[in-house]
Amino acid sequence: MSIDATLRERAARVVPGGMYGHLNAALHGPGYPQFFVGGRGCRQIDADGREYVDLMCSWGPVVLGHRHPAVEAAVAASLATGDCLNGPGPVYVELAELMVETVPQADWVMFSKNGTDATTQALMVARAATGRTKVLVAHGSYHGADPWCTPSPSGTTPNERADLVEYVYNDLASAHEAAAGAEGDVAAIIVTPFKHDSFEDQELADPAFALGLRALADRIGAALVIDDVRGGWRLDLGGSWEPLGVRPDLYAFSKAMANGHPIAAVTGVDALRGPAQTIYSTGSFWFNAAPMAAAKATIETLRDIGGVALMERAGVRLREGLAAQAASHGFTVSQTGPAQIPWLSFEGDATLEKGVFWASACLQEGVYLHPWHNWFLSAAHTDADIDRALQGTDAAFARLRAEFGAD
Amino acid sequence: MSIDATLRERAARVVPGGMYGHLNAALHGPGYPQFFVGGRGCRQIDADGREYVDLMCSWGPVVLGHRHPAVEAAVAASLATGDCLNGPGPVYVELAELMVETVPQADWVMFSKNGTDATTQALMVARAATGRTKVLVAHGSYHGADPWCTPSPSGTTPNERADLVEYVYNDLASAHEAAAGAEGDVAAIIVTPFKHDSFEDQELADPAFALGLRALADRIGAALVIDDVRGGWRLDLGGSWEPLGVRPDLYAFSKAMANGHPIAAVTGVDALRGPAQTIYSTGSFWFNAAPMAAAKATIETLRDIGGVALMERAGVRLREGLAAQAASHGFTVSQTGPAQIPWLSFEGDATLEKGVFWASACLQEGVYLHPWHNWFLSAAHTDADIDRALQGTDAAFARLRAEFGAD
Repeated sequence: MSIDATLRERAARVVPGGMYGHLNAALHGPGYPQFFVGGRGCRQIDADGREYVDLMCSWGPVVLGHRHPAVEAAVAASLATGDCLNGPGPVYVELAELMVETVPQADWVMFSKNGTDATTQALMVARAATGRTKVLVAHGSYHGADPWCTPSPSGTTPNERADLVEYVYNDLASAHEAAAGAEGDVAAIIVTPFKHDSFEDQELADPAFALGLRALADRIGAALVIDDVRGGWRLDLGGSWEPLGVRPDLYAFSKAMANGHPIAAVTGVDALRGPAQTIYSTGSFWFNAAPMAAAKATIETLRDIGGVALMERAGVRLREGLAAQAASHGFTVSQTGPAQIPWLSFEGDATLEKGVFWASACLQEGVYLHPWHNWFLSAAHTDADIDRALQGTDAAFARLRAEFGAD
Repeated sequence: MSIDATLRERAARVVPGGMYGHLNAALHGPGYPQFFVGGRGCRQIDADGREYVDLMCSWGPVVLGHRHPAVEAAVAASLATGDCLNGPGPVYVELAELMVETVPQADWVMFSKNGTDATTQALMVARAATGRTKVLVAHGSYHGADPWCTPSPSGTTPNERADLVEYVYNDLASAHEAAAGAEGDVAAIIVTPFKHDSFEDQELADPAFALGLRALADRIGAALVIDDVRGGWRLDLGGSWEPLGVRPDLYAFSKAMANGHPIAAVTGVDALRGPAQTIYSTGSFWFNAAPMAAAKATIETLRDIGGVALMERAGVRLREGLAAQAASHGFTVSQTGPAQIPWLSFEGDATLEKGVFWASACLQEGVYLHPWHNWFLSAAHTDADIDRALQGTDAAFARLRAEFGAD
């Protein structure tokens, strides 16, 4: 029996179902390992010692590659003096200053631990500022796993979601309708920087939609909140809608902010500084110094090495390679989303039968990607790493053709 | 200008109010430093280099003392191979097994990051199991800082709290009334292991109240949830109501579980294993290996050194010393709560004027404690440390008498 199987058997006795949440291998497809023991750069090693070129980056957090020396040195130095103390360390101020300097929208920052903490905190600030209750959310968008936003209704109550009003991503008219239906009670409009819903092709934000949401928020006096938990620090260090020229009132960040160390943040504009002071939002480990030191080192490194451009370059190389391979094997595929956070689907594969087969085949060829969740590139993915990944994906396309035939 | 003042000035520009949450020094009293740079055992050092005997333990997390070698070695080993990966490491299984072995109530475990994650997750499991919505909560009890439970209403909506029904701590009849009022729709009764509300004397749980809540939950088919975030791992490693012979359906743990590293957990009974599998609850860093390695080392160390007894011994020594000092200086004080998580108040001091003065005086004498929030002892507090603390508290009582006169 493999080590992974042995660990799963033990886990099933002491954790419901053995595993839960987004890293539950039972959700990914056949053959995915559940347990991992190591990472180095863009490679990960599972419990049975198999090494993969990693195209998931731990579902986003790892943006500079595993065990990045500058980040780990900052963490080690922090742990060596004191991490969880009776107040934050100087690094709290330094990180906040760095973020205000890096994100043009940001006049201030508040830190927390989970992406869900940041989205929830942003809505609290918006509600405190407006005295209103409703929040416009795009149908199907993921904003975290608290009862108000978790994609599964089990264990949640109708009241916990009663303050949400849905619109359709990239459909400005639907947002106007949602606002009109909420009759002057809209505290916030929350939106992801691009549509990254699972199980379907991604969509970049239509610039007119982004500008239109900004104008709508201004007109009705609501806060525009960008949930940049997934996109943040990969698309633009200034915030993912900075290239569109659209600045929200509140950004929610997490995932890639500290290269895998646990931290999240909300940045806000001056007008919301006062309301932000009225909410009570905190956590036992929110002011730990080590993850803040990691975040500071991560953001500085991304800035200094031009991390976004490196990720984009890797993503474009991957996309072009996959396009050529799909064509040569006779498959029609869609590659959607930003190059740094890509996804590939097969034409006419609504059941994901081909996608799941192909992803599992990639896994067997030493390439870890996902059949129904977007992937993530890191600044550690060199041309050689992408070429190694493309060797695996090519073999996987060949296996797919042997199983299903060409389109 | 002090380093602390300089940092505060900078922080005020980039964080709303400069600081927020439970570690906001503006809430503690005059003279409290905001910024800390180091910890060693039961001592902490502020940004200006002043060292304190620490009786707050970072508001609970630090249970073995800062920079405990076994914990930090486990963390370092984990970071050196891989921390935030595409799945948990073997330590996830080892920690879950250790918790099931250590907590007699526990048949299974689910991990998260914040204490609030654990209390929220516990209620989700209870609701998934019962298909009901209401939760009975004691008036004034702190269960975290999400909108459903944060002590300040700012930024929350009525709907977010509409599923809560209040009872009075240690008043079983009030819990029966609350249950009757919720008409068969009670999913859970949540309770802290002792009453540790801020600004007032603590109360241990009346054993009849604890047994009565258990019987009530059984009779109405609701889950009994003990929020052991604050008490856990200090009162009894098996869970804080284990000495009372009362086992809940769900325990929520966090704070002291990993000696300051960020992790939380829910433990549950077999009957809730299936419902727990139906909820979707996750976070980007919930499966990081390093905090799990820290938790495993912390729990094993607490077990091996008899950590609870050490903390109790330190707490009793402190309490006896304070009682003698108060009497000798002519003050009537209440010392309430478990010895390991104590608090002291002055008779007739409803405005906390004396308490705040005395706590600030302690601070000036090198003893860090709190005027209106309970304190925390750790296994690192030796007799000599307590005696050093008592030197400071004695001087503070003398100053209090000089300022206010004896009772």
